[in-house]
Amino acid sequence: MKYLFRNDYSFGAHPKVMDAVCAVNLEGNWGYGDDQYTARAKDRIREVCGCPDAMVEFLIGGTQTNVVACSFLLKPWEAAICPDSGHLNGHEVGAFEATGHKILTVPATPEGKITPDMLPPLLELHQDPHLTKPGLVYISNSTENGAVYTKAELTALSEFCHKNGLLLFADGARLGAALTSDANDLTLPEFAHLVDAFYIGGTKNGAMFGEALVITRPELTDGFFRMKKRMGAVMEKGWIQGVTFLTLFEDDLYFKMARQGNEMAARLQNGLKAKGWTLWVESPTNQVFAVIPNQVKPKVDEVCDCEVWCPYDESHTVIRFVTCFHTTQADVDGLLAALPNL
Amino acid sequence: MKYLFRNDYSFGAHPKVMDAVCAVNLEGNWGYGDDQYTARAKDRIREVCGCPDAMVEFLIGGTQTNVVACSFLLKPWEAAICPDSGHLNGHEVGAFEATGHKILTVPATPEGKITPDMLPPLLELHQDPHLTKPGLVYISNSTENGAVYTKAELTALSEFCHKNGLLLFADGARLGAALTSDANDLTLPEFAHLVDAFYIGGTKNGAMFGEALVITRPELTDGFFRMKKRMGAVMEKGWIQGVTFLTLFEDDLYFKMARQGNEMAARLQNGLKAKGWTLWVESPTNQVFAVIPNQVKPKVDEVCDCEVWCPYDESHTVIRFVTCFHTTQADVDGLLAALPNL
Amino acid sequence: MKYLFRNDYSFGAHPKVMDAVCAVNLEGNWGYGDDQYTARAKDRIREVCGCPDAMVEFLIGGTQTNVVACSFLLKPWEAAICPDSGHLNGHEVGAFEATGHKILTVPATPEGKITPDMLPPLLELHQDPHLTKPGLVYISNSTENGAVYTKAELTALSEFCHKNGLLLFADGARLGAALTSDANDLTLPEFAHLVDAFYIGGTKNGAMFGEALVITRPELTDGFFRMKKRMGAVMEKGWIQGVTFLTLFEDDLYFKMARQGNEMAARLQNGLKAKGWTLWVESPTNQVFAVIPNQVKPKVDEVCDCEVWCPYDESHTVIRFVTCFHTTQADVDGLLAALPNL
Amino acid sequence: MKYLFRNDYSFGAHPKVMDAVCAVNLEGNWGYGDDQYTARAKDRIREVCGCPDAMVEFLIGGTQTNVVACSFLLKPWEAAICPDSGHLNGHEVGAFEATGHKILTVPATPEGKITPDMLPPLLELHQDPHLTKPGLVYISNSTENGAVYTKAELTALSEFCHKNGLLLFADGARLGAALTSDANDLTLPEFAHLVDAFYIGGTKNGAMFGEALVITRPELTDGFFRMKKRMGAVMEKGWIQGVTFLTLFEDDLYFKMARQGNEMAARLQNGLKAKGWTLWVESPTNQVFAVIPNQVKPKVDEVCDCEVWCPYDESHTVIRFVTCFHTTQADVDGLLAALPNL
Repeated sequence: MKYLFRNDYSFGAHPKVMDAVCAVNLEGNWGYGDDQYTARAKDRIREVCGCPDAMVEFLIGGTQTNVVACSFLLKPWEAAICPDSGHLNGHEVGAFEATGHKILTVPATPEGKITPDMLPPLLELHQDPHLTKPGLVYISNSTENGAVYTKAELTALSEFCHKNGLLLFADGARLGAALTSDANDLTLPEFAHLVDAFYIGGTKNGAMFGEALVITRPELTDGFFRMKKRMGAVMEKGWIQGVTFLTLFEDDLYFKMARQGNEMAARLQNGLKAKGWTLWVESPTNQVFAVIPNQVKPKVDEVCDCEVWCPYDESHTVIRFVTCFHTTQADVDGLLAALPNL
Repeated sequence: MKYLFRNDYSFGAHPKVMDAVCAVNLEGNWGYGDDQYTARAKDRIREVCGCPDAMVEFLIGGTQTNVVACSFLLKPWEAAICPDSGHLNGHEVGAFEATGHKILTVPATPEGKITPDMLPPLLELHQDPHLTKPGLVYISNSTENGAVYTKAELTALSEFCHKNGLLLFADGARLGAALTSDANDLTLPEFAHLVDAFYIGGTKNGAMFGEALVITRPELTDGFFRMKKRMGAVMEKGWIQGVTFLTLFEDDLYFKMARQGNEMAARLQNGLKAKGWTLWVESPTNQVFAVIPNQVKPKVDEVCDCEVWCPYDESHTVIRFVTCFHTTQADVDGLLAALPNL
Repeated sequence: MKYLFRNDYSFGAHPKVMDAVCAVNLEGNWGYGDDQYTARAKDRIREVCGCPDAMVEFLIGGTQTNVVACSFLLKPWEAAICPDSGHLNGHEVGAFEATGHKILTVPATPEGKITPDMLPPLLELHQDPHLTKPGLVYISNSTENGAVYTKAELTALSEFCHKNGLLLFADGARLGAALTSDANDLTLPEFAHLVDAFYIGGTKNGAMFGEALVITRPELTDGFFRMKKRMGAVMEKGWIQGVTFLTLFEDDLYFKMARQGNEMAARLQNGLKAKGWTLWVESPTNQVFAVIPNQVKPKVDEVCDCEVWCPYDESHTVIRFVTCFHTTQADVDGLLAALPNL
Repeated sequence: MKYLFRNDYSFGAHPKVMDAVCAVNLEGNWGYGDDQYTARAKDRIREVCGCPDAMVEFLIGGTQTNVVACSFLLKPWEAAICPDSGHLNGHEVGAFEATGHKILTVPATPEGKITPDMLPPLLELHQDPHLTKPGLVYISNSTENGAVYTKAELTALSEFCHKNGLLLFADGARLGAALTSDANDLTLPEFAHLVDAFYIGGTKNGAMFGEALVITRPELTDGFFRMKKRMGAVMEKGWIQGVTFLTLFEDDLYFKMARQGNEMAARLQNGLKAKGWTLWVESPTNQVFAVIPNQVKPKVDEVCDCEVWCPYDESHTVIRFVTCFHTTQADVDGLLAALPNL
């Protein structure tokens, strides 16, 4: 059996989450999120975010959450600014455009970030009413490349956005990994207050599925439930999401799991370097990117499942290893032992 | 604690389904439905449907499945013909229109059905190219009112559709209830061959969530996965759906559960009649509709959770009780004992 | 050559309009409506409407104007309430649904109107957040059946809408005919103040093309130009629309033409009655509806072009004659002479 | 009065077009393009294109035509490949995305073209079903930068597209300028056969408005009229478009006008060079691009209306002069005399 480092949704839920879901399975609850667990989970998330007035709504997956949230926050003629490497842009089969909105890409930093200095020319150009109006900036934290926004970076971006009439939306599919990274200096409440909306990703950190969308500004939330329903995103047995997030935010489980993923990634990253491997980027979170000679790829494939990220040059390829709450030291050490030195 | 007859998604999954999901939870599987359980579940569904060439794809909930499937099957300028009482029309916050398609309603029979004789005037009118082109007929089985299509009825409708260039799509949110009803004379393969596409509803019959969309004509299926992804309907941990449907279609579990719901509904329906209650319709499936004087409503509410279906007249209301796999004889008898005679 | 009573867009523009357009044809003007004629025409329309703060924008045709305006005024999850006979519902190939919005139909009065008493049950039902939220009421004046709203009727509807958080939108494709009808008791400014948005139809009253959309409440207008452009509705040589509307609203030409159409329709209607014809409705504007035995239809077709409106019963058909600014007494008398007595 | 070189839609229609439209103005014709002029114009266009089986449909403006045509030709999950400088991408307020489709941009050549070698990596990447499927390639001829595709270039691109399952669509807003350019070696029939769909732009070459969309492959055209209507693009008085295009393609008027624009542009371009001006690109059609020091801009503005195209560097700006059928030698020589030497 091969080591499975393909992604952080290769395993199901943390056992505590499964237990909690099983415990209420036949209890009987009202549908569509109109149950006590969902209500309590929303309260708990408002609490951990330090946003007592925020709207919290549960959705099912990342693409759905990005699309429902961003199209909800924009007027039809407004566009989302997105790093060219952003998931919203590249990996969702045009799901966002399917809601009728344009994406305006900016070339991301090597870390996959947007910085405020990228935006003025784009805003200047789009003052022309024959062009879309930029309405929000989409970022992810951690980014597609595993990097995290520092407090200084996010503050600068947030201030720029708010001075320029832009909303700031953060894709938090891997928010746990970001906020527990050694490179992070933001608390969850600080993060929540710097953005206008974000989601706390469950799928990639210990849930069977489920993302908690937080819109921190109540004046932006009117009509959200109907928008969610209109996009087929309301679960009938919504209490599963409620119970899941209640469990994730009890006893720090969400962050404990994320830390485990990060630590295992760091161990793997260090181990690869010790074996003479070249990293594509130095990642402080649970994704590890390595540049390997093409001819080494078959050997890697024998040993483990991981993903080809992108071509590097004619003779090299970037591959990605992802860890998660379920990755153990033994997994990492076993993988390292099995991989060739370079 | 009140009796819970609110709907068939008030309880979670059948214990066998939960056990199966838990059993593979930390096994490690590829995401997005690219796993062995999903593959086997698709094969099993093709087998039980007698459609070896059908496309089977798993989605998450009913609204999503209706919307993804019907918008996939239509050209942009084509409309869905739908009974005015159909879920697609009335209960999905315009989710189908959100994909850019018009719904053409026809007044349903009291049972919630469409019959072929309703359609020629509508088709005649819509030959005018300044009007939408009817592209498919949407029905549900069982219907919103709990009725089931007979073989004769469905054959007539299917033949009419195919003679007139219309696809026939069946919303099978409660397909289990329909096919195990005493009023049913269709096998699943017969049903599958009479329609062009349908879904086997998991959410309302023993799954945590999940619907199995079946498109019986392979020539209609090109590009479906991208359409599904584009609409945010691809689960990352897709094997949960695979394991769920594998379990549902092992040992006849899906139909056993549906039979249980139907039997409990029949018991309840008979019991209500014995207590002098008036039925709104005589239902052969797991939904029971009663007409009650408005002043009786508070007493009913004390005893159980059920739904107000619609006003009947100024002094009466239609209420709905729904049973499911988890409803026991004791629940029904207890409810009957607690409800007032009328 | 047959008499042409097919519709009010069978003839081009009033000669004064053509002359004015020709006069500026090679003058040179900035595109996209950024020219002096457009600016002056907007001012003139604000003046005749008594709405100094209104937004006026020119569009090209009726369907486009309805769709751009109504989708602009609604949130994605909001629906338009429309009489079942309304143009938005029946005759636009789902153009409005193509923008992602549902239409909620109410059965119109025989005159094609909506009255406030029709709306409470629909509003009550749609408080359920699993259903679309009604956001505006769409009416037409004159209606599809040629009727006009009285001041009392429109006031009542307007008050109802505004008490219930609904916008009121009027399709004014035939607004000239309505406001110059003997049945009308509304001035244009009174009309303008009772609705939130409407358009003054040029195409059906003496323009080559062009509709003037008026949104009377400035707080609703932000972003409109981009919305219009996004829907392909901005003309490059926009001054043609400006010059057209300047001419239409100079010297009362717009209303003079409409009066001519109405008078010719009245003459025709009276003449038909004198010949023993049965009217479908008694129309006070420029559309005349007659019920004829089916076997008379070929004779009518020999004599003139007119439209089949709808079947009446098995042996009778409703046909429609439409007059316009270009219809003369000689046309009407000639047609009457040529048609058979009934 | 300033010289007007702002664009090729600053003047109305050629006098012959206006005369023809005026001549039939009050003749009486059926609406929606169901008239003899439209029928004859379609035949004439099929004839000049050498495509006897092509579908020809008239639309109103360029953005509308691009959007209706491209969204008609694609499945919902398919994307258009577009040069980053393409009009569809940059200048239409997301009108194409509003139909639910993604645009995949490729960096255009300095001339604004797409070459086949740009496409394989994009196609390779998009074999992944989690990404949109590229469905067509959008080009413009002449391009946004005034360049024209040679026969060799277009043949290579066409062959690449057809080998790779892509449709090739050409935006012909300035097709007249392209095909009458000295740099052109394509006949209209050759051009028509190399692409799958294109439009012959009227608005920018002597029409009041109107574009003739040609889909050369009849098997792709089913349902087009409804799509056009659904997008608000059907003119009620459609015969105006018919008469316009009949006139444009009588006696070579369309190409005569385009030649005049090109010749005047060449004269201007040569004149600017003689005055020491730097061209941004050497343009063979009716758009002339010059790089000027920023401080010269106010002087240019005194003399003429032209457009700022883009910044060049910190101290220079690219401006664009556009000529058309109505530009005379006197206009060009007058402008040249009035502009400063550089």
